[in-house]
Amino acid sequence: MEKKDFKEKLNNVNQFKISEKTDIKSLMESLAGTGFNAKRLAHACEIYRKMIQDEDCVKFFGLAGAMVPVGMQRIIHDFIAEDYIDILVTTGANLTHDIAETLGYHHLQGDIDPQELDDASLHKEKMNRIFDVFLPDDVYMGIEDFISELDIPELNMPVSEFLAFLGKELPENPNSILKICADKEIPIFCPAFTDCGLALQLGFHFRKMNLNHFKDMMEMVDIAWDAKHAGVCIVGGGVPKNFIFQSLQFCPTSAKYAIQITTDRPEPGGLSGATLDEAISWGKVNEKAQKSMLISDATIALPIILWYLKSIIK
Amino acid sequence: MEKKDFKEKLNNVNQFKISEKTDIKSLMESLAGTGFNAKRLAHACEIYRKMIQDEDCVKFFGLAGAMVPVGMQRIIHDFIAEDYIDILVTTGANLTHDIAETLGYHHLQGDIDPQELDDASLHKEKMNRIFDVFLPDDVYMGIEDFISELDIPELNMPVSEFLAFLGKELPENPNSILKICADKEIPIFCPAFTDCGLALQLGFHFRKMNLNHFKDMMEMVDIAWDAKHAGVCIVGGGVPKNFIFQSLQFCPTSAKYAIQITTDRPEPGGLSGATLDEAISWGKVNEKAQKSMLISDATIALPIILWYLKSIIK
Amino acid sequence: MEKKDFKEKLNNVNQFKISEKTDIKSLMESLAGTGFNAKRLAHACEIYRKMIQDEDCVKFFGLAGAMVPVGMQRIIHDFIAEDYIDILVTTGANLTHDIAETLGYHHLQGDIDPQELDDASLHKEKMNRIFDVFLPDDVYMGIEDFISELDIPELNMPVSEFLAFLGKELPENPNSILKICADKEIPIFCPAFTDCGLALQLGFHFRKMNLNHFKDMMEMVDIAWDAKHAGVCIVGGGVPKNFIFQSLQFCPTSAKYAIQITTDRPEPGGLSGATLDEAISWGKVNEKAQKSMLISDATIALPIILWYLKSIIK
Amino acid sequence: MEKKDFKEKLNNVNQFKISEKTDIKSLMESLAGTGFNAKRLAHACEIYRKMIQDEDCVKFFGLAGAMVPVGMQRIIHDFIAEDYIDILVTTGANLTHDIAETLGYHHLQGDIDPQELDDASLHKEKMNRIFDVFLPDDVYMGIEDFISELDIPELNMPVSEFLAFLGKELPENPNSILKICADKEIPIFCPAFTDCGLALQLGFHFRKMNLNHFKDMMEMVDIAWDAKHAGVCIVGGGVPKNFIFQSLQFCPTSAKYAIQITTDRPEPGGLSGATLDEAISWGKVNEKAQKSMLISDATIALPIILWYLKSIIK
Repeated sequence: MEKKDFKEKLNNVNQFKISEKTDIKSLMESLAGTGFNAKRLAHACEIYRKMIQDEDCVKFFGLAGAMVPVGMQRIIHDFIAEDYIDILVTTGANLTHDIAETLGYHHLQGDIDPQELDDASLHKEKMNRIFDVFLPDDVYMGIEDFISELDIPELNMPVSEFLAFLGKELPENPNSILKICADKEIPIFCPAFTDCGLALQLGFHFRKMNLNHFKDMMEMVDIAWDAKHAGVCIVGGGVPKNFIFQSLQFCPTSAKYAIQITTDRPEPGGLSGATLDEAISWGKVNEKAQKSMLISDATIALPIILWYLKSIIK
Repeated sequence: MEKKDFKEKLNNVNQFKISEKTDIKSLMESLAGTGFNAKRLAHACEIYRKMIQDEDCVKFFGLAGAMVPVGMQRIIHDFIAEDYIDILVTTGANLTHDIAETLGYHHLQGDIDPQELDDASLHKEKMNRIFDVFLPDDVYMGIEDFISELDIPELNMPVSEFLAFLGKELPENPNSILKICADKEIPIFCPAFTDCGLALQLGFHFRKMNLNHFKDMMEMVDIAWDAKHAGVCIVGGGVPKNFIFQSLQFCPTSAKYAIQITTDRPEPGGLSGATLDEAISWGKVNEKAQKSMLISDATIALPIILWYLKSIIK
Repeated sequence: MEKKDFKEKLNNVNQFKISEKTDIKSLMESLAGTGFNAKRLAHACEIYRKMIQDEDCVKFFGLAGAMVPVGMQRIIHDFIAEDYIDILVTTGANLTHDIAETLGYHHLQGDIDPQELDDASLHKEKMNRIFDVFLPDDVYMGIEDFISELDIPELNMPVSEFLAFLGKELPENPNSILKICADKEIPIFCPAFTDCGLALQLGFHFRKMNLNHFKDMMEMVDIAWDAKHAGVCIVGGGVPKNFIFQSLQFCPTSAKYAIQITTDRPEPGGLSGATLDEAISWGKVNEKAQKSMLISDATIALPIILWYLKSIIK
Repeated sequence: MEKKDFKEKLNNVNQFKISEKTDIKSLMESLAGTGFNAKRLAHACEIYRKMIQDEDCVKFFGLAGAMVPVGMQRIIHDFIAEDYIDILVTTGANLTHDIAETLGYHHLQGDIDPQELDDASLHKEKMNRIFDVFLPDDVYMGIEDFISELDIPELNMPVSEFLAFLGKELPENPNSILKICADKEIPIFCPAFTDCGLALQLGFHFRKMNLNHFKDMMEMVDIAWDAKHAGVCIVGGGVPKNFIFQSLQFCPTSAKYAIQITTDRPEPGGLSGATLDEAISWGKVNEKAQKSMLISDATIALPIILWYLKSIIK
């Protein structure tokens, strides 16, 4: 960067105040004048807003991590309901947990210190632990009842098509991600679909199932190819991040907007922790993209971003 | 934990909604029904509220990390102004930066990607970098002008007494931590005082200075000894964390409330990342204490906690 | 844990010495008498040794992260050559990069500070960056030449079968993971196969390809079902970790030995950072398993573990 | 960086082999041809070697973290015995623990999973926990017996002078850091001295003690001022890092060699996780310095670096 350019871009750090007038919008405006991850959170909010307001932008959303079990199901649901997501890429685990909640089962939590927990006892109690959230084993039986009775029209369809079918078969539920995606025809891609409890149950009950993963991959390339502009929001990292990014290489402009929320770090070289700058070298993110790599637990960042967006976009 | 106790403590995870009625209070109530760090943030808010509402509680606040440079000066100031802090323990760096801002200088930030920065050029420009925040070198000259003209009444006084003196000497400023602490007679302890630019300048100008660190240490022990109840909020970790905790061993009840906000991790054994549970083994935190170890950048957590507290405490 | 049990298990920390006689075996023995991650590394070495020496143990190895690009290809190759791996589960990226190196292309590195790099320029130079390692874009053309000429006997075979076919088609190479697995009939599972450059090229050249992911999933379950004992070594986390662990629920004894090497952390709830204890609650790891969760960059830990194993196992 | 320069600096990643001939020297040479933290570890070894072999170089060593409790006491001792350290800056905790071991007490460890531990019970057993290492409370009584009987010649001496006095008073012990530093006249600086159990005991027994922290600070500046070349190795971060770096601003050349071993991360802006590049902007590290920022638990890295150095330097 040129010396003059650099100095011209500098402002006083904003020593901001929380007052009675503080609302989510003003807080994010204040944080934009600070640094570290506060500034990145504010930028993430602002970039997402621009993605939404750019009518040519296809909004890709990558969702890894146990976001449904921990209580972010409705948050994700509302990102979709509000038209903030055009393409969802997620893990089989989140889909399995979404079915559980949609069928009326619940993940559990409480005033419990994980250190007090004895996993061997939890196993005897058939209580599966996800850090400080729990899923009773018998929920899987409930899912299995639902799965085993499915009348699947075609065992070779793409995974995304199957997920749309599944969404239609599920009962009405105000929080369900699969349901709202099916209703709004938002495609869900799940490249590692056989890496989850849902797929295992399908495998046991429909021995000839061979959902077509390649068709999804090619469709995703076509979507990127056709996108005038692309925007990305990555929660966590993992396969959803890579799957979106490998497709964006085929987007004429590569990603124009890019947000990632993760606690992974870059130095050990894994893709989940890789900076969004690194993606520029690959042509996945545009060199002029607006980017925010937010180092934060998504359970804190996602509700704040949604709150900001809902308060600012009418 | 007994099996029965465990199951009785469990609730359904709260798949909560952001609505037009969402405010900071309701958001934290919602997050308390989730898990991971969202739940810990909600608990931190609630525990801090209890600390404030417990009239017998002495509230210790440990502040490490570049919180003044990044824009959290006014936030900390208001924690003090609102009587949310009784004893502040911090680093020399935060005090040095507080003086800079109080004297009218500014830290700088901008729409700049740290990756684009060349530190060798910054050095030539005399622009000191703190991640993505900057401090021009000449600010130190301004501080030095102020320091060199001080008429210090006693070169052997405790550090805390010197910091109170300094607060009185500083000009009025709505954000100044040193000033508000001096005004409200909130003691500031800085056990590693000679580890900062402020102390270096004092050393150069007052060759016989020998501020008494031991008196501070003993006074801190007395404060803990006299505290009916103790509450702790640790930002970052480092010396402020250890200095507070070593004193709490002398508190009759040890800490009854304990919050830490950090991104350090426990496995490499350093105190900054050590869990609050570990402090129970030492008798620094009470075994029945209400605790929240929040893994988050403090620049995100502190404004939210202050916002919550100000909205709920009248 | 009972009080008596606890005290009986305690030893003096070993304040060990590095001498002229130090070798990798004695170093690991010394580290076993320490704590933090040094002890965990020593335990990982010892547990892997036991896995190998337990003739009834099926050794599952999960490999995520850019291990081939960074120079760990031969290390992984030798784990396989030495019979230290029975089942490999990995990412498409590692396979793509393995093909590149096997065909005679190279990843690049140098005495370069990532901070000095400008990703926009790298993109213009067609030089793809993986933290501080580089892959010239034209390597993909070389891979494509190889892929496009394949005479694939069956477009619906399981991914693992296709990878064995690929291994046979590749030229001889002393480092190749695909080759040695094909030669030794070690199955490679890749549940997120369509999430990589290799699959993209296959998709472009073989439009009707529909490799059967479900058959792999079911075969993996069968392997776990039949395993008298199971041992796991997870590098990184991600889909390979989950895919192995979901299968181990079907293993009569669940994992008897478990090692993970990662830098991810547990608090945000993602599976990659989840402790091995958590897996006990799910019945994936046995409550009596010997476990080591090593928080380390795998590029440091893997060569040390291999060195230890090769020096001790004859 | 110029395009041509960049390409000329690139080499093929070294897909290296562990063989019967592998020794610590050859392993580090191999890792230097890789990337991520393996390369950084190899560079740390090489840079430290250069520091030692540069006769004009003053070698500063910053030691934070519970390195004595975990079993690194002898490792640090031998860095000093081998003349690899000229100036040691550390925490009061490491000194307190060094006295404990030097007096014949021991830290404890065992085949215990931290998750199985109940800190409330440990507290009842008077067993203080440092992650997975333990210190029985009564060790502090033993230290107190030693401290209370000291005949301290001067209560206003600098901390470093007092630590040299302490080293002489301690019994012979092959592992003692304080002892070897006293014997070899290696100064130990401890800027946050009143932040430890040792200082608390001194405070209780010598009510008039006022060790002079400012003289240490000024002496440290003088040492840096006089250093033709400066080399730094930082373990952990914290006050020792800052204290060394604030002094290096006064070194005519600033640091020519710089190594840090930490697991802290840069994004939240704290000094412990700040990159060594950032220190260039401040004039603490030279822009042409050889640097390695190693993200690793020091309990793994320190023994390896010492092993390398002892094997290569005769």
